[in-house]
Amino acid sequence: MDISLNNLEDLFPKELNEEQRASAKTLFLKKLALSLHRFYNGKMMTIPKAGLWGPNWFNIWYTPGVSAVSTTIRDDQDASFELSNRSNYVAVVSDSTRVLGDGDCSPPGGLGVMEGKAFLMKYLAGIDATALCVDSRNENGENDPERIIQFVKMLQPSFGAVNLEDISQPNCYRVLDELRESCDIPVWHDDAQGTGCVTLAGLINALKVAGKDIDKVKIAFLGAGASNTTIARLIIKAGADPERIVIADSRGPLHRKREDVKADPRFYRKWELCTQTNPECVSDFEEAVKNADVLIALSKP
Amino acid sequence: MDISLNNLEDLFPKELNEEQRASAKTLFLKKLALSLHRFYNGKMMTIPKAGLWGPNWFNIWYTPGVSAVSTTIRDDQDASFELSNRSNYVAVVSDSTRVLGDGDCSPPGGLGVMEGKAFLMKYLAGIDATALCVDSRNENGENDPERIIQFVKMLQPSFGAVNLEDISQPNCYRVLDELRESCDIPVWHDDAQGTGCVTLAGLINALKVAGKDIDKVKIAFLGAGASNTTIARLIIKAGADPERIVIADSRGPLHRKREDVKADPRFYRKWELCTQTNPECVSDFEEAVKNADVLIALSKP
Repeated sequence: MDISLNNLEDLFPKELNEEQRASAKTLFLKKLALSLHRFYNGKMMTIPKAGLWGPNWFNIWYTPGVSAVSTTIRDDQDASFELSNRSNYVAVVSDSTRVLGDGDCSPPGGLGVMEGKAFLMKYLAGIDATALCVDSRNENGENDPERIIQFVKMLQPSFGAVNLEDISQPNCYRVLDELRESCDIPVWHDDAQGTGCVTLAGLINALKVAGKDIDKVKIAFLGAGASNTTIARLIIKAGADPERIVIADSRGPLHRKREDVKADPRFYRKWELCTQTNPECVSDFEEAVKNADVLIALSKP
Repeated sequence: MDISLNNLEDLFPKELNEEQRASAKTLFLKKLALSLHRFYNGKMMTIPKAGLWGPNWFNIWYTPGVSAVSTTIRDDQDASFELSNRSNYVAVVSDSTRVLGDGDCSPPGGLGVMEGKAFLMKYLAGIDATALCVDSRNENGENDPERIIQFVKMLQPSFGAVNLEDISQPNCYRVLDELRESCDIPVWHDDAQGTGCVTLAGLINALKVAGKDIDKVKIAFLGAGASNTTIARLIIKAGADPERIVIADSRGPLHRKREDVKADPRFYRKWELCTQTNPECVSDFEEAVKNADVLIALSKP
């Protein structure tokens, strides 16, 4: 087998149809991932980036030399970005409640993905990152967003930025909004804002190709999870007309009569979209899609 | 200059006496540490330890392959130690309230030391570690031990062990004891237990050389901080007779009449030693030292 995995397609019997081939491929990748994660014990490590040319150098990187680093930072907090790895260090924080397509995988279950995100950051951008899968469950066993908020606020002094990841809704809204409001370092929710940014970029370019204006197109969204609701917010900020937008969750299109959404204040971001979009309260998604210029779907139909 | 710094002594004028030479050397090490920490932006980084032989490998280390890692850990929490870097990963946690000899250096001030500890762990033992200097201050600006406890409990799923470091007393006692009681992974306080272990080892060997028995020697301690109080506990566990021990803090020897220690319940570990040691309530440390076989001093006189 080609170690680049470029010939993966050729390894399966020709009799398989496209769907069978795709699921055989996924199965193969999962089996290989499992055995290789076990072989390597994960995929990230820490390592010195500064040299040590003999045992005397411990006097530089540790005591007594490092004392000058501590006192300099004590007198000027921002010096921490220069005198430690902080400026290039991202915390990938998750409660593992919505890991990829597998839902709640228990706190340590997200480690493969969060270490994977650290792997991507280093490999593709030279950024140091570490996986912090946290146990945010309270005495009742519920995932408590306030605990994640407290955790991230506390770790700020050690990191340049925080990447929230795979936190299920509705907790993800409160966690993100509160942390962006109160933290001194950048905080983003990858599933919401990362996906939102690339989708907006794709939309802008697709509209150029189609020769349409963002403020005049009718946009339908299939799904109203953390990603789609943030994409909608971003696209509205970028100039789309909310009155020409229809967003549907599993119960149908959002609109201002959706009392079920209004009833749970934790879904405030989703409710915001109920009041802004779909002013005619179209309740049939198929009808809404019919004349749409754009369909954005992050859920399966 | 020899890059190993082995000839450092030769660089200073011969006229300097021993004390001047020592302080010139420390000053040099501090200056060099400061500029090199700035040059490297700290001293640790993260890096992949698993190979990537082409872009298809992102399917192994990220989606869809990594899904098998998540679901396997979900169904068997302990699999996280095999399928991620967890088993080799130590969190070096500090509130930076007692950084080396510099006292409270503000939350990010400990980064140089905690990154240094991660540097030592990797360099000397192959262990991955990361600096987590936390802001444990509450609304009143006080360093709250309960916050550190909550923080460490939450991060457990991502680490194999936790090294507490440079947390000042009395908070260090409560943080360590509570976490050792409630955590599923090993937790130790380096300043207390690390220092304690090497001191006990040194004592055992020194007594062998001197031909004395640990249960018969008279031991005096100068200082009653986190390190000395834990050393005393360890040495008593190892067989020393508490009635032959005298421990002095800045107000003199500890004993059961020391109402000032008893008054603050956060100093419960120190009070424990007040009740166990120095039964005659000797209140003059010089007298206590006079006939002692051993002197353990982690504070300056």
